[in-house]
Formats: sequence, structure tokens, C-alpha cells
Amino acid sequence: MDNKNIDTDILMEESLEKILEYLDEKKYFQSRDELLKFNAVDISELLEDISEETNIDMTIILFRLLPKDISVEVFAELSSDTQVDIINAITDKEIDFIVKELDFDDKIDVLEELPANIVDRILEKTPKHERKLINTFLNYPDTCAGSLMTPDYISLDKDWTVGRALEHIKQVGMDAETVYTCYVRDSGRKLLGIVSLSTLVISSSETKVNNIMVTDYVFENVYDDQEDVSEDFKKYGFLAIPVVDNEHRLVGIITVDDILDVMEEEATEDIERMNGVIDWENSDKGYLDMSVWQHALNRLPWLLILMVAYIFTGMIITNFEGRLSQIICLVAYMPMLMGTGGNTGSQAATLIIRGIATSEVETSDILKVLWKELRIGIIVGTILSAVNFGRVCLLDGQSPEIALTVCSAMLLIVIFAKIIGSMIPLIVKMLKLDPALIANPAISSVSDMVALSIYFAMASLLLGL
Amino acid sequence: MDNKNIDTDILMEESLEKILEYLDEKKYFQSRDELLKFNAVDISELLEDISEETNIDMTIILFRLLPKDISVEVFAELSSDTQVDIINAITDKEIDFIVKELDFDDKIDVLEELPANIVDRILEKTPKHERKLINTFLNYPDTCAGSLMTPDYISLDKDWTVGRALEHIKQVGMDAETVYTCYVRDSGRKLLGIVSLSTLVISSSETKVNNIMVTDYVFENVYDDQEDVSEDFKKYGFLAIPVVDNEHRLVGIITVDDILDVMEEEATEDIERMNGVIDWENSDKGYLDMSVWQHALNRLPWLLILMVAYIFTGMIITNFEGRLSQIICLVAYMPMLMGTGGNTGSQAATLIIRGIATSEVETSDILKVLWKELRIGIIVGTILSAVNFGRVCLLDGQSPEIALTVCSAMLLIVIFAKIIGSMIPLIVKMLKLDPALIANPAISSVSDMVALSIYFAMASLLLGL
Repeated sequence: MDNKNIDTDILMEESLEKILEYLDEKKYFQSRDELLKFNAVDISELLEDISEETNIDMTIILFRLLPKDISVEVFAELSSDTQVDIINAITDKEIDFIVKELDFDDKIDVLEELPANIVDRILEKTPKHERKLINTFLNYPDTCAGSLMTPDYISLDKDWTVGRALEHIKQVGMDAETVYTCYVRDSGRKLLGIVSLSTLVISSSETKVNNIMVTDYVFENVYDDQEDVSEDFKKYGFLAIPVVDNEHRLVGIITVDDILDVMEEEATEDIERMNGVIDWENSDKGYLDMSVWQHALNRLPWLLILMVAYIFTGMIITNFEGRLSQIICLVAYMPMLMGTGGNTGSQAATLIIRGIATSEVETSDILKVLWKELRIGIIVGTILSAVNFGRVCLLDGQSPEIALTVCSAMLLIVIFAKIIGSMIPLIVKMLKLDPALIANPAISSVSDMVALSIYFAMASLLLGL
Repeated sequence: MDNKNIDTDILMEESLEKILEYLDEKKYFQSRDELLKFNAVDISELLEDISEETNIDMTIILFRLLPKDISVEVFAELSSDTQVDIINAITDKEIDFIVKELDFDDKIDVLEELPANIVDRILEKTPKHERKLINTFLNYPDTCAGSLMTPDYISLDKDWTVGRALEHIKQVGMDAETVYTCYVRDSGRKLLGIVSLSTLVISSSETKVNNIMVTDYVFENVYDDQEDVSEDFKKYGFLAIPVVDNEHRLVGIITVDDILDVMEEEATEDIERMNGVIDWENSDKGYLDMSVWQHALNRLPWLLILMVAYIFTGMIITNFEGRLSQIICLVAYMPMLMGTGGNTGSQAATLIIRGIATSEVETSDILKVLWKELRIGIIVGTILSAVNFGRVCLLDGQSPEIALTVCSAMLLIVIFAKIIGSMIPLIVKMLKLDPALIANPAISSVSDMVALSIYFAMASLLLGL
């Protein structure tokens, strides 16, 4: 297992206890010194824990006791609720300092989450030219490349020598989000090429930047979707990708560390969608931070849509009601047949939706998928039917005719469910929609209807109802 | 949308058509020149497309015509099936070259996927000391830090000056997986500290490495789980993390680009598990590459387990059968009540399982979650019941008593399903198991039984059955 993580976790827990004791005795400086044993990420976690265990005031006191340079890093890592509380509590001068020292992309992240009145309060303290830049950045839609990028990149002149370039990096490097890739622009800010720091380091210092820059680099447009951006990072394995506007002017860069968060967000969104939860606000708020009403709103649509679908299921049953009451024992197998149909269908759908998301399955594979699922359905259906035949005859003591009805229905249901479950996502994809939007519950309820129809058809056929 | 990607996609499609025409006319060199318009990642994609459209022989011919240095990069990106075909077709000398030139971690990735006889053929051509290293790497379990790392890192001496260190990087830099973080070891290979290239570049060249290295770095143990490793990358935003053995000797480094794949793999695994698909072989094979039997094997366990669970559902119904046949119209609402219960339950479970996976929800939050889900259940249940009351009375023309039975059952079912769906994953987590293992289908089938029991209880109570 993860020795180090366990170690850090244990250390943090021990420190948390110590700090809580210190705070009880109003020993604020000891508490702070205890905090300072950790790095900024861990300190922010501890501060969140402290406000949970005691109250936000303690967190604010400790935050203000942190050395200034560390406090900025810690601030960037705190939850937006805590950020708001801190901003409301500290002096304008302190706000000033934090705003000035935050990395540009952290600043944007912070501002995006804060309420409008606080944003205004912060923007007031920002120099005019930066205020304009911040406003541009804040206006990019939440899920596009523009919202992920930072303008803190290093740009070089194509006519510089490697020596001059390295000198330049030495001077401005500290403020850049990454110094590992440098960008060469023309006078109109159009991107000409990129040079990695490693190329600079291993080149002789007289070489012209012009001669070592790469010109067939990969780039993104500011309005590209963040999912496509993360695809490119995965495909090419870069540490940073430049972002250009429609005139091919360099406006910022995206670094790989921000992509890790995007990937987690996108996976969460897919998982939620597949299971019938819609995130209307596209928020990256966590489960616990969302209000009860927001949760209800995210979950109701599919439940309501599916309830309407169940009207048809009800109609299928009502149609068969008279005959069903003659052999009432058939009712006992309905949940199993519908449930198994739903489960097999959503298994197939899950694999196909995920395959599409990871670009492994394409719409042109539809016939391959059909043929594969048909065979899987026959294998799985046959095994389930065989097991089931034993159950119905031996365990339930039903007649072989009833067992045959249930089991032949089972086989057909599994085959159809596999086909429905695999085909619907591919068809949705062909219509240029996100296959994850057709949630698994929806596929289950289509399988439900098919399952009931097949069951009653087999019953009519084999039992002469 | 993504202008560039669309552009590349269109360009690649056009080139593919051209290449296929050239190949038809046996113009192999023109085909190759067409390929060389793209980078290695895209060339490998085109080669896969070509073997799909024509046959593997064409791909092998084109592969052999590629310039040697590009062919190695392309080889690393190909699917393992194509890699095997190529290795079987090319000469020992060509294999030699590829094996020698592949980055160490690509080599390990390639070898892990190839059949044993081919691996032997490759290892024969490897120098003895490297063969030993390869064998060590191949023996790390598939999902641990050891299997992700590369030994191609840059190590520095603590007594070197920055100038000497940069000189060293210039010499060996090309072969390292990343030059952006350098590692300082003592004579016993124990890790002392790390220095980033950016620190080296901005430091004066007389400074001692000793004085600028970071000693409170984050590291992993070779046997740490890859999920914990990717957590650390997400938490700290590093480009690379060192990996040490139990004696704290540096054995390799993990770079962030490999973590992107891990995150995708882990998300896929979670999604599949949540929907009742078990990947027995822990394979990273895609949907299309897996055999029909493998698919059947991965899907059968949950279907079989759940079928057993449906025996209990059947028993609940059988118990009520006599009374059910008196008011047969109650059967028509069974699928809706069970389905809605299952859907609400799996919505809650999905959110909690994902919350646990992203470390946002912890087991200590269990009471908070319970209270939240209870309130969400009341809101959602009330709205669904109200809509449903209208449907049963007006659309189906049933008596108010029946409508009341169905709707009061609906309210209770939704509340219970939300509680069951949210509590089961937390309880599983408390037992130190992966909550995703308790698949949503399992939660649905528990909700099913609860739903039926509640429905029949309400019917007995309100309709006097």
C-alpha cells in the first residue's frame, strides 16, 4: 500500500489534534508552527478541517498568521466558501496582496467561484490593464479552452540566440506558469513556433531560436471544448499546449496539471449522466456542497421522463391482465425478466458509451458491435436460461411448460437487451449527441417494455393464453 | 468547436484515401511520403486504418519504408496486435534497432502486451544488464507504481555546481524521459533531494546543487497503487514523481503523461464496475479487442447473482399472489414502482460512489449524507407521487383508493431507495472495500425488493387486502 500517503495522512491527523488542543488554549502561534510543517496543499486541507471541527473564525485567525508568501498559495487551494469567508474578514491591504501575488490562472479560478460583490471588490484593487484581461478571461464559457488557460507564458524573439533566450528565462521565469515550453511570436502576436527549455539547454548558446523552434506544433482555439483539449493532451503527452484566437494570435497556454482536473470532471459528468443525474449548472460543486433543492432538480427530470415511459409498461400489462389472472404465477417472474433485461442492456450500453468516450469505438463499428453483442447475448442468455430452468422447475415446482415459457423469454430478452443497449448509444452518437445523455435508466426502461412484450408473447404461444 | 482537430481529422482522411489509391497502384514511396506529412502519433493511426482497409501486409511494407528514427516512435504508438505482426515480419536486425531505440518505459509497455515467445525473441537481443532490469520491471504488478515508472531519469551529484549540472544535462538529456526534474542520490542510491531544471536555469552557475535541492519532496513506493499515485499528481500538480523501494533507494520516476492514461483507465474501471461489468483480467484491452467469451465472462457474474436475488422478489410476489389476483390492476403499477425505486437508488449511489472516488465524501460524512438524502427523497418523492396521482386517477380511471395506494407507496419507496442507495456505498467503504464493486444493479435489486414490500404493505393497509 501507499506508505507515504498513509504517513502523511497520519501526520496530518496527529497535527490536527495538536492544533485543536492549542486553539482550545488560545495558543495561536504554536498552532501556526504546527501547520507550517506541511506544504501549502496540505495546510489548506488542515484549515478546512479546522473550520469544520471548530469554526471559520479559527481558520481565519490561523490564515492571517501564515507567512505572506505561503498564505497566497494556501488561499488558492481553499474551497470557494472558505475563500469568501476569508475575503470578507481580512483587510483591504491583505486582499490587495493576495490578489497581486496569485498566479493568473488561480486568480481566474478564484474569481469564477466568488459572488459578484466580492469579485467587484477584488477587481477594484487590480490595475486597469489587468482588470481588462481578467474580464476577458472571465467571459470565456466555463468548459472551453479559454477558461483553462493562463497568459503567464514565456515568449521569445525568433532572432534571439539561445544564450539570450536563457538569460530572458532567468529574468522572467519565476512568474511564468511553466518555463518548460517557450513561445515564439511575430510582431502581430501571431504564434510562429515553440521551443522547449530542454532544447534550449542542450543547444549551443550561439544558435538562433529561429533554427531550433518547432513549427508544426499542436495548438487549441480559445473556444475549443475542454474535452477535446484533454484528448490532445492524452494523445500527444505534452506538458503544455498553446491557445490561439481566430486570427492565430497566441492568447495563453494550458498546462497539463489543469487537465488532470478536467479529466476528473469529465469522468464525473459522464458517470452521473449515465446514471440519470443531470448537472444543470455544470457546476464543479461537490455532493456535500450542493443544496437539497439542487440535488432534487438534478435528479427529477429522468425520474419524471421514465415515469411516463412506465405508462406504456402499464398498458402492456393491462392488455394482458385478463390472461395473466388465469396463470397468476407468471407475475412472480416479471421482476426477474425485466430486471435481467435492464441489467444486461445497461452493461452493454456502459461498455459502448465508455468506448465512444475514449475514442475506442466509432460509429463505423456499428455492425461489428452488433455481431459481437448478438453472440455475447446468445452465450449469456443460454447460461442464464439454463440456470433459471432449474430454479423454476425444481425450486418453485412449476410445470415444465411454465419453465419453458420463462426460459425461452429469458434467452430472447437477453439477446434483445444486449442489442438495444449497444445500438442506442451508437445511434445517438450518429445524431451527433453525447451518448452518455441517454442514461442507463432510459435503456433499462426500453428493455423493460421489450422484456414484458417478449414474455407475454411467449406465454401466449407456449401456454395457449 | 475544435478547428484544429477537425482540420487534422480531415487532412488525415484525405491522406488515407490518397494512400489507399497509391497502394492500389503499388506506389509505395508516394504512400510513405504522404504518411510523413504527419507526426508519429498520427502516422500510427493511419497505419492502423490502412491495415483495416486493406491488410496488415500493406502496413508492414509502409512501416519498413519509414525513416528509422520515426519508425521507432510509430512502433511505440501501434496497437499490440499490429506490433506482434510487425515483429513477426521484420528481420532480427530491424527488431534489434527498435528494441535499442525505444524509450525504456515504452519498451516495458510493449513487452507487457506481447506474447511470451516474442518477448523472449526480443530479450535475446537485449544486453544482459538491461535484460535484468526489464525483467524486474515486468514483474511489478500491473497496477502499481513500479509498472508505471521509467529508469531514464537524470541524477545529479549533490556536490556539483549548477554549471556542471547543466553541462551534464546537456550530455545525457536526450535519453531521459524528462529533464525537467533532476534527482540527487547518495552513494548508496538513496534519494537525497530533487532539483527542477527551472531552478537550475535561474540559479547562478557557481551555486552548489546541495544548496538548491528540495528535500521535502513527494515520492511513491514501487508497490503503491496507481490510483494513489494519480491522486498525488492531481493534488500537487507535479510533472514527475520519484519512485523509491523499501530502502528509499531511487528506482525510477513516473511522469504525468502516463498518469493521464491511468486516470482514464481508473474511470473506465469504476464506470464498468458501477454498472455490473467486472474486468477479471484487469486488462486495458478495448471493447472491440476483447473476445466474445471474455465479454460473456465479465458480464455473467452479476447477472447470475442478481438472478438469485430475484428469487426473493419472486417469493414476495408469490406470497401476495392470492390477494393480487383480487385486484389484478395493481400488477400494472409494479414495474413503475420498482423501476422508479431502482432509478432513484442508483442515482444516489452514483453520486456517493463518485464522491468517495474523488475523495470529496468520506465515511465520517455518513450522517450528513443520510440527512441530505432523506430531505431529497421527501422532495422528489412528493413531486413524483403528485404527478402519479393525476395519472392513476385521470389517465387510467382508477379509484382514488388505488391511486392513494400507488402514490403513498411511491413516496415511501423513493425515500427508502435514496437512503439505501446512499448508505450501501458508505458502509462498503467502511468495510475497506471499493464502493464501485457494489454495482448499481445490485442496489437496484435491493430497492426492488423494498419497493414490492412497501407496495404490498400499502395495498394491504389501504385496500384491506
